[in-house]
Amino acid sequence: MAVSLPPAPSHVARLRERVEHVLATFLREREGLLVDISPRLEPAAGALRDFVLGGGKRLRPAFCYWGWRGAGGVDGEEIVVAATALELLQASALIHDDYMDGSDTRRGLPSVHRRFEAMHAEQGWNGSPAAFGAAAAILLGDLCLSFSDEMFCGCGLPAERVRAAKPLFDVMRAEVMAGQYLDVVEQAVGGGSVERARTVIRFKAAKYTVERPLHIGAALAGAPPQLLAAYSAYGLPLGEAFQLRDDVLGVFGDPAETGKPAGDDLREGKRTVLVAMALERADARQRACLRDLLGEPLLDPAGVDELRSVIVATGALDRVEELIERGTADALAALDAAPIRDTRARTALADLAVAATTRRL
Amino acid sequence: MAVSLPPAPSHVARLRERVEHVLATFLREREGLLVDISPRLEPAAGALRDFVLGGGKRLRPAFCYWGWRGAGGVDGEEIVVAATALELLQASALIHDDYMDGSDTRRGLPSVHRRFEAMHAEQGWNGSPAAFGAAAAILLGDLCLSFSDEMFCGCGLPAERVRAAKPLFDVMRAEVMAGQYLDVVEQAVGGGSVERARTVIRFKAAKYTVERPLHIGAALAGAPPQLLAAYSAYGLPLGEAFQLRDDVLGVFGDPAETGKPAGDDLREGKRTVLVAMALERADARQRACLRDLLGEPLLDPAGVDELRSVIVATGALDRVEELIERGTADALAALDAAPIRDTRARTALADLAVAATTRRL
Repeated sequence: MAVSLPPAPSHVARLRERVEHVLATFLREREGLLVDISPRLEPAAGALRDFVLGGGKRLRPAFCYWGWRGAGGVDGEEIVVAATALELLQASALIHDDYMDGSDTRRGLPSVHRRFEAMHAEQGWNGSPAAFGAAAAILLGDLCLSFSDEMFCGCGLPAERVRAAKPLFDVMRAEVMAGQYLDVVEQAVGGGSVERARTVIRFKAAKYTVERPLHIGAALAGAPPQLLAAYSAYGLPLGEAFQLRDDVLGVFGDPAETGKPAGDDLREGKRTVLVAMALERADARQRACLRDLLGEPLLDPAGVDELRSVIVATGALDRVEELIERGTADALAALDAAPIRDTRARTALADLAVAATTRRL
Repeated sequence: MAVSLPPAPSHVARLRERVEHVLATFLREREGLLVDISPRLEPAAGALRDFVLGGGKRLRPAFCYWGWRGAGGVDGEEIVVAATALELLQASALIHDDYMDGSDTRRGLPSVHRRFEAMHAEQGWNGSPAAFGAAAAILLGDLCLSFSDEMFCGCGLPAERVRAAKPLFDVMRAEVMAGQYLDVVEQAVGGGSVERARTVIRFKAAKYTVERPLHIGAALAGAPPQLLAAYSAYGLPLGEAFQLRDDVLGVFGDPAETGKPAGDDLREGKRTVLVAMALERADARQRACLRDLLGEPLLDPAGVDELRSVIVATGALDRVEELIERGTADALAALDAAPIRDTRARTALADLAVAATTRRL
């Protein structure tokens, strides 16, 4: 797996700095509101700040911002605020997902439910530390979800423009939550097909991470339907390629880079496209190995290696790498054909396509 | 405890019918969106429909609607839609609360997490039924939370008016989530004072159920700050009285009326104002009884009766009934002094004050 990892282009880094600044300012203000209600909310405000500002690729704000620029919108603080709202939605989804998946860490730090579980245990409070951690994570995720549309609606762009884009924001949220639910159902049902796994990532990732952020930026700028269609032609294959790269990194990635223990996705038994392809192509012996070891919570490094070997030997890894390559190429071809005049937007979207599928951002 | 239970006034019943209609129409449309994504989302859409349309007092939409009317707003479909959005927020809070509290039932039916837990078990799916139920409840609560601001922003009132009211909607959400978090912390810390319990219900109930819905209705109608202040003077004591009534019903209520098993709040060990007052006034023997039995998951009917007797004997019940009476009287006095011209709004708000504190709606 020789993935070239180019450094992030400077415009990606510059926008990311602006997004960080908007997030930090917003959270500082909200922290004041929370602590005014009660000083006992300080740990909650602190956990939110650490989680939201603790890293992240800020891909969704980037697609939203460049979707706006590609539609002829001019640079300004308001569009950066509107785009940053997507990052609060993502924070909410991650806080809730980590709890649902039982993940102990996120970006190398304890996940939110584990952080509050530890606080409860340290303080020697009444009741179950795990139940306390769960409640805190659910409520902080809810708060982030509320903050997200608060930031979006309050971005400062004209009310009529926000109103025109809000239905796309709403559809995006419903799609990602529906995609998550389908994902949970697929894990429970087990033995899902490649086709089913691709439906999950279409809603959970392709639309949510790339297509809808572009659409929202375009709608805020008052773009015509043709541009939205062009953004779909670029965004859907790219978004799928992005998620497939994520799946590959979940199995083969370096823990220093992913922030998660090696083989965590295998231990969780995630039914990704990569895994579905391996199951589809496996011979009897390989299938038995996959069935036995996938989702085994105590999977050791030798077991992780064994599963990796099977995934490589079935040809599933090569096939997924092909799909990533083709998706990226399709996205770039669609970008070439898109009615975008601004050459900077064009360059940025091309750079983002490469960055999102090689994952060095 | 002789509580008089007058029938709901006809305007309360009429508005409730309109709220039900808005909810049913909205959910039918969203169900189409979900099932288009995948037929596997049918159970999720069905659970949402059953939960949201399965009853509820619709108090928050009523306060929002009459807050609008009291500010001189004229009746129309748009304000009913905006007000109904509060009910979707409440549905989200209940779905998540039921999971966090481990409640098995809601309005006499299985809670959402139990419903999906049972579905998982019936289908014999992989993994833990409880974890599946938790994930489904978290995601459906998230969806309801998104639907809430979707309905509010899309209510059809002029964009500038919605923009003026949205910050109050945002503050209300932050307050109720902060109040829930504080509640969870108070249960964990234990032995909370009456004062602390009153802070929790201020945010979790008084502001969320009465004051903010009134403010939102008023802001949508473009009301001046004096009216918002008058609504606070009416709404805060009334909202506290409402929650105190809820606490009394949680201990002494008829299961047929509350939809929850008798003594459920005692079994959960909820640190309500009623309980805090009993603890504060208890002698050594009574305190030992409260400490031993409160929060005992297997509390039997004899234990429930014993706790009830102690709460009565300490004088806590009488004191809480006094507080309810005084809160209601303060609210009605503030209403008399409020700058409201519309006599129908005045009558409705007076009726709601009685209905919310006697709880036959």
